[in-house]
Amino acid sequence: MKNIDFFFNPSSIAVIGASDKVGSVGYEIMKNLIEDFPGDVYPVNIKQKSIFGKSSYKSILDVPDNIELAVIAIGASFVNDVLEECGKKGVKGAIIVSGGFSEIGEMDREHKLLEISKKYGIRLIGPNCIGIYDNFSGVNTIFLSKDKVTYPQKGKISFLSQSGAFAGLILDWTSKEKIGMSKVVSYGNKVDVNEADLINYLYQDENTKVICLYIEGIRRGKKFMESAKKVSDKVPILALKSGKTKSGAKAASSHTGSLAGEDIIYDSAFKQSHIIRANNFEDLFDMAKALEKQIFPQSDGVAIVTNAGGLGVMAADALELNGLRLANLDKNTINKLKDRFPERVVISNPMDLVGDADKERYEVGLKALLEDKDVGLVIVILLLQVPTLSLDSVDSILKIQKISDKPIIVLGAGGEIISPYLKKLEESGLVVYTSPERAARAAYALVNHAKVRGDIYTERKKDIGICKT
Amino acid sequence: MKNIDFFFNPSSIAVIGASDKVGSVGYEIMKNLIEDFPGDVYPVNIKQKSIFGKSSYKSILDVPDNIELAVIAIGASFVNDVLEECGKKGVKGAIIVSGGFSEIGEMDREHKLLEISKKYGIRLIGPNCIGIYDNFSGVNTIFLSKDKVTYPQKGKISFLSQSGAFAGLILDWTSKEKIGMSKVVSYGNKVDVNEADLINYLYQDENTKVICLYIEGIRRGKKFMESAKKVSDKVPILALKSGKTKSGAKAASSHTGSLAGEDIIYDSAFKQSHIIRANNFEDLFDMAKALEKQIFPQSDGVAIVTNAGGLGVMAADALELNGLRLANLDKNTINKLKDRFPERVVISNPMDLVGDADKERYEVGLKALLEDKDVGLVIVILLLQVPTLSLDSVDSILKIQKISDKPIIVLGAGGEIISPYLKKLEESGLVVYTSPERAARAAYALVNHAKVRGDIYTERKKDIGICKT
Repeated sequence: MKNIDFFFNPSSIAVIGASDKVGSVGYEIMKNLIEDFPGDVYPVNIKQKSIFGKSSYKSILDVPDNIELAVIAIGASFVNDVLEECGKKGVKGAIIVSGGFSEIGEMDREHKLLEISKKYGIRLIGPNCIGIYDNFSGVNTIFLSKDKVTYPQKGKISFLSQSGAFAGLILDWTSKEKIGMSKVVSYGNKVDVNEADLINYLYQDENTKVICLYIEGIRRGKKFMESAKKVSDKVPILALKSGKTKSGAKAASSHTGSLAGEDIIYDSAFKQSHIIRANNFEDLFDMAKALEKQIFPQSDGVAIVTNAGGLGVMAADALELNGLRLANLDKNTINKLKDRFPERVVISNPMDLVGDADKERYEVGLKALLEDKDVGLVIVILLLQVPTLSLDSVDSILKIQKISDKPIIVLGAGGEIISPYLKKLEESGLVVYTSPERAARAAYALVNHAKVRGDIYTERKKDIGICKT
Repeated sequence: MKNIDFFFNPSSIAVIGASDKVGSVGYEIMKNLIEDFPGDVYPVNIKQKSIFGKSSYKSILDVPDNIELAVIAIGASFVNDVLEECGKKGVKGAIIVSGGFSEIGEMDREHKLLEISKKYGIRLIGPNCIGIYDNFSGVNTIFLSKDKVTYPQKGKISFLSQSGAFAGLILDWTSKEKIGMSKVVSYGNKVDVNEADLINYLYQDENTKVICLYIEGIRRGKKFMESAKKVSDKVPILALKSGKTKSGAKAASSHTGSLAGEDIIYDSAFKQSHIIRANNFEDLFDMAKALEKQIFPQSDGVAIVTNAGGLGVMAADALELNGLRLANLDKNTINKLKDRFPERVVISNPMDLVGDADKERYEVGLKALLEDKDVGLVIVILLLQVPTLSLDSVDSILKIQKISDKPIIVLGAGGEIISPYLKKLEESGLVVYTSPERAARAAYALVNHAKVRGDIYTERKKDIGICKT
């Protein structure tokens, strides 16, 4: 793998097609880069002399300094000439935002692009993409206005998307969901840099602990699978693949020209590469935020503790539907709790602390479960609405989490009064889900990756990575 | 069916076990009733003379006026004696909040309850339940404090729950989700009034347009199925049934003593009764809020219009996975759009208006789809984040909705800036979903109920009501 770090940490950037016309693509890219990127940004525009108060150049060849990264956002018919100039200038990488290539049947134009790229050794992202958002370096070529889109908090999840619009949506959505993001890359027609290159790069990135993919179709399957298998041993990879059905595959072919292929082939390829397949985008990031915490179970037994029996039943269902196993509690665990709990408490798994459970009952129950050797992780269902739990009961859970080396997943939901307390749990480092099914998927991702890492022994490593739901 | 309206619209209520001890069950019930219920509320407490400034009575027999509904929240061992007194008093219905009956193995105590009920002709809800929340009459026996729980806005969705804690959670959660609720009933051990009685009652309730159920196990299956089949022709019934797996069934048996039974039997019973089965509680209310609008498709063809191709692909997948059919657009529809759209627009289904679509392109596309005879409903995917759509573009969709007799489902998601505009769509009468899969489930529910109603012809009516995902 050749290094492509200059896309994410360039010393300088030229924006070819920069503009000060409010609302244009060239305007938004310039504006975002000037605001977010600490390095030098040079506008290039054939007509204008000054953009955002900076001297603008007719050609990248006129820029007096070295340029590592060029962002190209001009009419498709001019792109090849401009790329040639980038080559002469010694640019290392170009993000081609412009559309108008293979996706509308302009195959020759796209082939020419690749030729120039090889001639000069310039690496390309795109064309037909929205490029890169790097929450650490400040590279931001996403041409969505900050008047409409909010950007997510820093985190260790990176997202690679074949669809540009979807990448934009995810940036905005993760900001609201308080999901911490590292790098978001929309790679469009992937004429040069593709999924395999990007996951290989992210493998070495200290700011990436989880990789999420949105895929409509993969061209070089073997290379992708080899990279994914290597990377996923250390950095878990989650994939949302659309075009699963006939209707979806047909739509994908009109959208990105992808040959979606038989879904069963993708399923099998993901399984062999230890990629965890997501059912939808909420599922993708539900799993990602649990994996981001980097605390993995050492046993595949899952325990549930609850003060709402019904939610315990739903969680047990959801775990089994994900192919997970409810932990078998040790006799010692059960015996020591019998003395401490009233008779109506169900000391089993799920452990139903019943509706009048208070903070102390939770503490005792949760600690005992975490000490049980068959328990690899615990789902804590916390119905804070009941009279016997004060809203500050969340502090007890946090206290126990701090001294535990096993993952704890919280399931809690509610209205305007409860929500801030659940948010506090998240901000203090726990993962919180609003439904039993979502909590179970997080557990699935953790157990699955622990098997891939070898933390949990499994005879059939090949079975890892199947989506069971 | 005997009338059970006195539970929901009683002329007067006695609270047996009323208390002014803050945080106790008897306190919360009194407080909620005094605040919400406009009729007479009488506290009954063996020890206290005055509660909430009202004269309190040692026995219901001492209350000087007629009592239609008694709410009983005292120790289980005293409930039968008190119910006997209710009988003598001529009470029509009693909600027995107290636990300590069959769920902990006290079978005799529960049988005795039923005996007294029959002797005096008192109908019973419970025991071991949290009772009734009626958003229209103000009956509120839910003992959750308003310091922690917010109650939902008025609406036409009623929810019947075997689990009390879960009913409480749903009240709080629907308040935040702005889902309009009518009646919420937690019926616990259902010694007398059961699901069948309640759905028969709701069938005639002008404030109920959709019935949602949470079930762990049903005892009198035949009666339930007969009622459900009759009711669902007019009022759609949605059910979330837990205990689907071995782990879940075992947990259900510890929780409500339900014999969950083979899941396939429930699946088949729901199908025969035209009950739509939900996969989880978000799914339950996603479908309910679409059905509540009472606009049903006349064709089972679904159309998608989008400015984000990837989301169109995901929506097409999700529709097919729900057993739905993408509408075949008429040649006329396609021809008339060819003249009006740039070449890059994909005039097909999904219709991809592409990333630079503006308000006018949406208007033209959506109108054409609604005029197509094979299109029964339209999913409008609206990525408001793009530069070419102003946030006020939502008004165009609303304008078209007002003159259309076909259901329109909106899929839109985003951060803090976009969310208020999506909320505006909901407040103006549209249904909005944040993911393709959730929008597709809403479409599924609408098509399914239209088939049951006979609005859409189907050869195999028996196939209705299967959950395909």
